[in-house]
Amino acid sequence: MGLTQAEKVIPGVRWLRGYSARFAVADLIAGITVGLTVLPQGLAYATLAGLEPQYGLYSAFVGGLMYALIGGCREVTIGPTALLALMTSRHTGHGGESGPHFAILLCFLSGIVELAMAVLRLGALVDLISLPVTVGFTSATALIIGASQLKALLGIRGGSGSGFAETIKTVIEKFGEARVSDSVLGFASIAKLKDIKTPADASKGRKTFGVALWLFATARNALLVLVTSSIAFYYDSKGERPFILTGTVKSGIPGFHVPPFSTQLPGPNNTSTEVGFVGMVSELGINIALVPVIAVLGNVAISKAFGGSGINPTKELVALSLSNIVGSFFSSIPVTGSFSRSAVNHASGVKTPIGGIYTGALVLLALGLLTPYFQFIPKAALSAVIISAVIFMIEYEVIRPLWKCNKRELIPGAVTFVLSLIIGVELGLLAGVLADLAFVVYRTARPHISAELETTSSEVPFIIIRPRHSLLYFPAVEWVRNGISKAIKSHGNIPVVLDCRTVNEFDYTAATGLGALRKELDTKKIPLVVLGPSNEVRKMLRETLKSSLLVASNEEELDAVLLELSCESRKGELREVVLPLLPQVSTEQESPPTTAVDIEE
Amino acid sequence: MGLTQAEKVIPGVRWLRGYSARFAVADLIAGITVGLTVLPQGLAYATLAGLEPQYGLYSAFVGGLMYALIGGCREVTIGPTALLALMTSRHTGHGGESGPHFAILLCFLSGIVELAMAVLRLGALVDLISLPVTVGFTSATALIIGASQLKALLGIRGGSGSGFAETIKTVIEKFGEARVSDSVLGFASIAKLKDIKTPADASKGRKTFGVALWLFATARNALLVLVTSSIAFYYDSKGERPFILTGTVKSGIPGFHVPPFSTQLPGPNNTSTEVGFVGMVSELGINIALVPVIAVLGNVAISKAFGGSGINPTKELVALSLSNIVGSFFSSIPVTGSFSRSAVNHASGVKTPIGGIYTGALVLLALGLLTPYFQFIPKAALSAVIISAVIFMIEYEVIRPLWKCNKRELIPGAVTFVLSLIIGVELGLLAGVLADLAFVVYRTARPHISAELETTSSEVPFIIIRPRHSLLYFPAVEWVRNGISKAIKSHGNIPVVLDCRTVNEFDYTAATGLGALRKELDTKKIPLVVLGPSNEVRKMLRETLKSSLLVASNEEELDAVLLELSCESRKGELREVVLPLLPQVSTEQESPPTTAVDIEE
Repeated sequence: MGLTQAEKVIPGVRWLRGYSARFAVADLIAGITVGLTVLPQGLAYATLAGLEPQYGLYSAFVGGLMYALIGGCREVTIGPTALLALMTSRHTGHGGESGPHFAILLCFLSGIVELAMAVLRLGALVDLISLPVTVGFTSATALIIGASQLKALLGIRGGSGSGFAETIKTVIEKFGEARVSDSVLGFASIAKLKDIKTPADASKGRKTFGVALWLFATARNALLVLVTSSIAFYYDSKGERPFILTGTVKSGIPGFHVPPFSTQLPGPNNTSTEVGFVGMVSELGINIALVPVIAVLGNVAISKAFGGSGINPTKELVALSLSNIVGSFFSSIPVTGSFSRSAVNHASGVKTPIGGIYTGALVLLALGLLTPYFQFIPKAALSAVIISAVIFMIEYEVIRPLWKCNKRELIPGAVTFVLSLIIGVELGLLAGVLADLAFVVYRTARPHISAELETTSSEVPFIIIRPRHSLLYFPAVEWVRNGISKAIKSHGNIPVVLDCRTVNEFDYTAATGLGALRKELDTKKIPLVVLGPSNEVRKMLRETLKSSLLVASNEEELDAVLLELSCESRKGELREVVLPLLPQVSTEQESPPTTAVDIEE
Repeated sequence: MGLTQAEKVIPGVRWLRGYSARFAVADLIAGITVGLTVLPQGLAYATLAGLEPQYGLYSAFVGGLMYALIGGCREVTIGPTALLALMTSRHTGHGGESGPHFAILLCFLSGIVELAMAVLRLGALVDLISLPVTVGFTSATALIIGASQLKALLGIRGGSGSGFAETIKTVIEKFGEARVSDSVLGFASIAKLKDIKTPADASKGRKTFGVALWLFATARNALLVLVTSSIAFYYDSKGERPFILTGTVKSGIPGFHVPPFSTQLPGPNNTSTEVGFVGMVSELGINIALVPVIAVLGNVAISKAFGGSGINPTKELVALSLSNIVGSFFSSIPVTGSFSRSAVNHASGVKTPIGGIYTGALVLLALGLLTPYFQFIPKAALSAVIISAVIFMIEYEVIRPLWKCNKRELIPGAVTFVLSLIIGVELGLLAGVLADLAFVVYRTARPHISAELETTSSEVPFIIIRPRHSLLYFPAVEWVRNGISKAIKSHGNIPVVLDCRTVNEFDYTAATGLGALRKELDTKKIPLVVLGPSNEVRKMLRETLKSSLLVASNEEELDAVLLELSCESRKGELREVVLPLLPQVSTEQESPPTTAVDIEE
């Protein structure tokens, strides 16, 4: 079997075509660099999700392999992220073994939903999330995550609830209990992490010193964790414990298990209640749909940023889906593309997604060999890793342009931000999307309408109504009718022309409304002419109204129709000409106006 | 205080201006005719709502008075309707006194919500209900009501549930128990009611016989009830009971009571549980919002049909609101305009809404004097009254035009119809509205785009992209980008022109997307020109992109820009001209193309 046939089965095989030693070295370096980032992040995000640290590493090796097999954008790295960890943390607080069970099942179900989205082409659902909503969502998430890490950073234990307000309250109340050693370590770590920025020209001018500086900056998380745990280890060997430590991390590569479809919730007096699949699903609730949508949103953003338009969104979705499904068999929590690690990958000069395989190998190696040392990692250091990762997610640059030219668009973003902080990121996001969509509906329901008094070349005055919207749909019907009534009130009983040249679509309600308007105008002997309807609009009007309507295809026809109407009117025959001409009645007409295009034609 | 001052307080005073004896007689006749219709309908609808018959009459006199004081359309008659009775029946099945309590509270709260809708100008919410959805909703309601009356019509007692499917099931299962006498009476009544149609020319040719026939036809419900109860009374005096009768109707005018804000639910063993205001509100649930919306929808439809565009929707809403609020103090169930009785009112030649006061007086008279006789009304006769009222609500004429020219619009109607039958009219209606709005969003997310290859007068080829939609909003961004990518793939790397002459609005996400597209095209050295953006669009692009963009106001400018670009390109200077010109960078340009309108201008 040649590469070409193999590629049909596994798209990733194409990376092997012309895979030179130079590529392999580049991918190896990039893979290891990303690995040095994902090790501390994985431990930290698992803690953020309310799980033991090793689950973060369990989540960090399947995605790279799956993406190498199917994905199409070399920079994308799939693994645990702060956002998904936060969403997962909602379900891990029930005690006992139920935490990891819920997280792993959520991972599995997210994968299934992503697969369904790929099959049903529902990936486009992320199109419904506008940029202001995205910004509101990620900024709120960053604040919530940051606040949740404040406790660990200050060495504060306990406190109620995990919401933003509750966390802040706990921090303020227990500020007196803050441990100096943890606080100093934590804030020093953040300062260090912030200080050592990845040089912008890292991927370009690679002189020896440049490379060293860049490697140092890129692996700063790993270095920080190494240094702080060494300090903790040193104190520990002297029998002292100045910092709150991570504690034992389970050693070894995770086994291959079917995801848990039932779990035990601890009850009072050492009893426990069995929760079946249905109970677990109802606990996960809306997150079964929202975690995949957020995951896809993240993935799309990354492949758009790095891959341009050459990316096949369906394949990306399948890669993401399999990363979650297969991952859940290795005790993974929900994963998606990580923007920060993808940027590291890009800066490290990765050539193909095979780099992800090296990352995975490094993670597995760490699980096998390094876990005994992980217990010495100070919690404050991990919190510093998280905070310095999410601090850049707070965006406010979007506010200024919106404030200057479209304040209305600030609303969905603000709704998302505020509600995310108050009632949770999932409902905040939903509310923001609905606020955005409500405006789309509003625009369709309340299109701009201009009503102007004009005269034909032959000096016949008429009112021309121009709806500035391409759809004339049911929510706008009353609005347009009122606009026309007002125009008649201010300009008098002269012919009304509805300019449909920019209107692409009428729906049935609008067509019926036009019929009712015509009847109403007939009683006042005001002619109604429709100008320039498209063929679709003509067809809809013909089928709905079942009677003729004065139609002019262009302005010349309009002039002629209006002239004819004014002559008829002077002869006192207006009524006959303008009244609704039912097909069977129209034969009774002695001289129907020749220029009026009967809509039945 | 003259009439003019009084009119400012009570708008209805204007009816008294020039109120002649002729008007008074006309209103009296119309009022009594409507009264003869509302008496049997009221008794029947109360039964439909699951309440004792007198509640229908309690609901039939306040609306007329309130509407006369505030309303603006002489034909509208406000009172109990089949639709609202059906929606009320959801909450009357808990036993004890709770049935009327829930119904009266629903009436009160509906009035409050309607008042809020008037204050907040939310009456326009009914604009969101399209004609196909309305048809689906009323047709399903008619079927449900008809099915619910089948049991009474056949004299079948008992059976489980009140849903459409359950009712039909009960009727089929218990068909053997159908009572011949009730069935004969019922179907004979329907046949009679259907037979005697109100003559179409009733309001015109009023010869003596014509008037008699018309009066007979209009008051046919009352006559039917009179005849059938006489028969029942005759048998009763002989000690026989061939029909199931209505039973005792409480006599007397209802007292003035504050609506019940708590109630007792009967429990097992003669106990009862107290349900407070919050409990009652949560039982009424979504109907607190939906009953008003349906009520307003009905009222709007009637005043549109009879009153044209001279009606002030806010005043109508206030009249409806006060009818419900004040009515709830007289034990009314939710009321709204009745289409059938308004038609009777119109045909009876009503001159002012004062006719409604005569109707109310007749109802009060009946409550005081006739209630002892109401017990003899056969239930099958009331069912016949209901069925013949709702049978005309089933509409299918809408299907043909939609099938022929816009099958898509059948979906919201069908969704409403089917879900109304299966899970209830309230959720059916909501689902239908959401299906309609989803399509509005879909059209905005997936506008028609045409991509064509054209050449300027100077033979420079370019791709012109025309979005056929007036909004370019966030859900369409990816769609338009993909359309452009496809066009480039099939036509090659030549300049791309985005025709924005029909696009009125860009949102922030779309503007940002355009910026990303320009960057992507820059890497392929493909120029991007925006043709004819409006001032609003220009402003949004300028604020968002913060760099220049090639813009042509019209086709002449476009020709010039494209010519210049092609010359620069031949000289190998394309890169400098087309790359994003950040304001501070643009000064480095030696010769920026003079014809390209910098968006910063």
